[in-house]
Amino acid sequence: MFTYDILARQGRARAGLFHTPHGDLETPVFAPVGTQATVKTLTPAQLDELGASLVLANTYHLYLRPGDGLVAEMGGVHEFMQWPHPMLTDSGGFQVFSLSETRKIDDEGVTFKSHIDGSTHRFTPERSIQIQENLGADIIMAFDECSDPNDHAYSRTAMERTHRWAERSLQAHTRADQALFGIIQGGVEPGLRAESSRFIAGLDTPGIAIGGLSVGESKTEMYATLDLIQPLLPEDKPRYLMGVGTPEDLLEGVRRGVDIFDCVLPTRLARHNAAFSPEGRLNLMNASFAHDRRPIDAACTCYTCRTFTRAYLRHLINARELLAGTLLSIHNLHALTQLMKDVRALIRAGTLEAQLPELSKRWENNAERQPSKEAT
Amino acid sequence: MFTYDILARQGRARAGLFHTPHGDLETPVFAPVGTQATVKTLTPAQLDELGASLVLANTYHLYLRPGDGLVAEMGGVHEFMQWPHPMLTDSGGFQVFSLSETRKIDDEGVTFKSHIDGSTHRFTPERSIQIQENLGADIIMAFDECSDPNDHAYSRTAMERTHRWAERSLQAHTRADQALFGIIQGGVEPGLRAESSRFIAGLDTPGIAIGGLSVGESKTEMYATLDLIQPLLPEDKPRYLMGVGTPEDLLEGVRRGVDIFDCVLPTRLARHNAAFSPEGRLNLMNASFAHDRRPIDAACTCYTCRTFTRAYLRHLINARELLAGTLLSIHNLHALTQLMKDVRALIRAGTLEAQLPELSKRWENNAERQPSKEAT
Repeated sequence: MFTYDILARQGRARAGLFHTPHGDLETPVFAPVGTQATVKTLTPAQLDELGASLVLANTYHLYLRPGDGLVAEMGGVHEFMQWPHPMLTDSGGFQVFSLSETRKIDDEGVTFKSHIDGSTHRFTPERSIQIQENLGADIIMAFDECSDPNDHAYSRTAMERTHRWAERSLQAHTRADQALFGIIQGGVEPGLRAESSRFIAGLDTPGIAIGGLSVGESKTEMYATLDLIQPLLPEDKPRYLMGVGTPEDLLEGVRRGVDIFDCVLPTRLARHNAAFSPEGRLNLMNASFAHDRRPIDAACTCYTCRTFTRAYLRHLINARELLAGTLLSIHNLHALTQLMKDVRALIRAGTLEAQLPELSKRWENNAERQPSKEAT
Repeated sequence: MFTYDILARQGRARAGLFHTPHGDLETPVFAPVGTQATVKTLTPAQLDELGASLVLANTYHLYLRPGDGLVAEMGGVHEFMQWPHPMLTDSGGFQVFSLSETRKIDDEGVTFKSHIDGSTHRFTPERSIQIQENLGADIIMAFDECSDPNDHAYSRTAMERTHRWAERSLQAHTRADQALFGIIQGGVEPGLRAESSRFIAGLDTPGIAIGGLSVGESKTEMYATLDLIQPLLPEDKPRYLMGVGTPEDLLEGVRRGVDIFDCVLPTRLARHNAAFSPEGRLNLMNASFAHDRRPIDAACTCYTCRTFTRAYLRHLINARELLAGTLLSIHNLHALTQLMKDVRALIRAGTLEAQLPELSKRWENNAERQPSKEAT
């Protein structure tokens, strides 16, 4: 279990198969975010139809509500939300740092207040792993501390703590049917990133996560960091770039050897009336679409584009009908899952590098800079 | 077109086929309400899967937003919302009387202000028909005035105006591919109801609607009114009881010769966390469902009941996830479409009367009294 077969390579990009208890995961892959054990506004049947394979759920949110004990009692998060394919949970660390107004970090763990009712809670590496074992996702994360990328001193402290917490997470982990990934930190400082990459790569884990990116640094810094990390990682483990992202960032990530991505962007944009398209990101609230008989993207094969005009979508938005969010979520998620499917085919055919300029052009102006990684 | 074949009778109940340009409609039938050219939170694919056949859209709402001209330009309401099966529009009268804060009625028509932006508009029978021809539903309604059932003098005035407006609606109607129904009014006054039934039955229309019920009168008054109307109507036209309703009222309506029903109740209850069930109406927000592994109704075959536990639905509600409204809408609409399907089979088998006590018992306590007919 949890072996990673590389089926084809092109440059640093890889097409692979990651074997999990809930089926083989084809990579590169984009994972929709199901924060509270639901990808907002979509049924599992709709997710399946749009081509999703891996779904992420948030440990922090499910711990607070409905509680990881209840999820375990219901048979785990797959059974609870009825998602039959692979799932991933994060460690909860990122949400503690971004959502809780007050928190106290020490070397043992973090004490924080719930964003829901202000009650006090404490996460340690051991507790995070215990919660993630209760949730029961296929891929789980070591507890980590994400620093401000522009604060060098803090980035070092957080990185060192992340390394100790990774070791403790591994120690605490008992379920053989879950793949625990360590997380590389170190901000955008090359020395720290290299040190963290070597440390995390040296741990006995079936995969490696890259944290602390898409949190406020520039695109140039993010790509340079990925360039620096890639040669330091073993070839036979999947690499997961957390919280990324935009169509452009997915392509740039794949080129730099990334295998797994997740981001709230497609569903969040959908709830704000925005759709990915080859014309650039469309805001369908715009009156210019009122009489537009075209689908969002004539080349797209999603349910929304096969079925509805921009005029209808614009009407739903204008009339504040919730179906708009559902239909745009279907489209935006399909766009990214289909993009990764196309990329996998191109890597296998050995034509990714040749096609990249056209692919990048097709998806430009869809998200010049992703919104800061959200926690909900 | 628009002939009505009665396939079987049991007592006053009928099982029939109403032929429309968008297919044959099996009756008795319950129509979900798609106020703004969308049944709230559901895709047409989900509506189709749950067994809906006829969908209602509101003339008042679509006239104001996006405008009936735009809907016509997009090919009509079927094409606009991508519903391939029969559709029905109301006349707009009821919404003008219930939603507009100020309105002025005269014998020619009604002047009212939009509930959206306060702008002034005027509906006449001719205008209502013109709008409904633009929308293009299969079944359309004569412009009518719904009175307070407890105000006898007003009920007479409104009924007489409704009759003159029905004649003018018929005069104005030009599309042969739309079935225009006249509407019986008269409050709960037997003399007025009988007079209105005879008048509307005497018009050359392919169907007859019963308005002014489920608007504040008692259940006893409603059933007595249906008992009084039924023998006065021709057998060969479908009868449509507007704005009804609850599982119990559907059964009592069918027994009294009603063929078509519509109501916002199932979708409105869904958005308020309530589900029809043989245990009575469930409020799934209730903490008692937190650990409940059962579906809403073990005997129900809808997607929601085939897939999810009450515990998961309760979590979605508690976490304010919109998917809850979608999944409960699927269940509640399926419950009523399936109930009508079962009733059709019982009428054809000649066993409706024998099964009614059990059916009524199964659905009791699901809506002791429906909320007053809503306009949105």
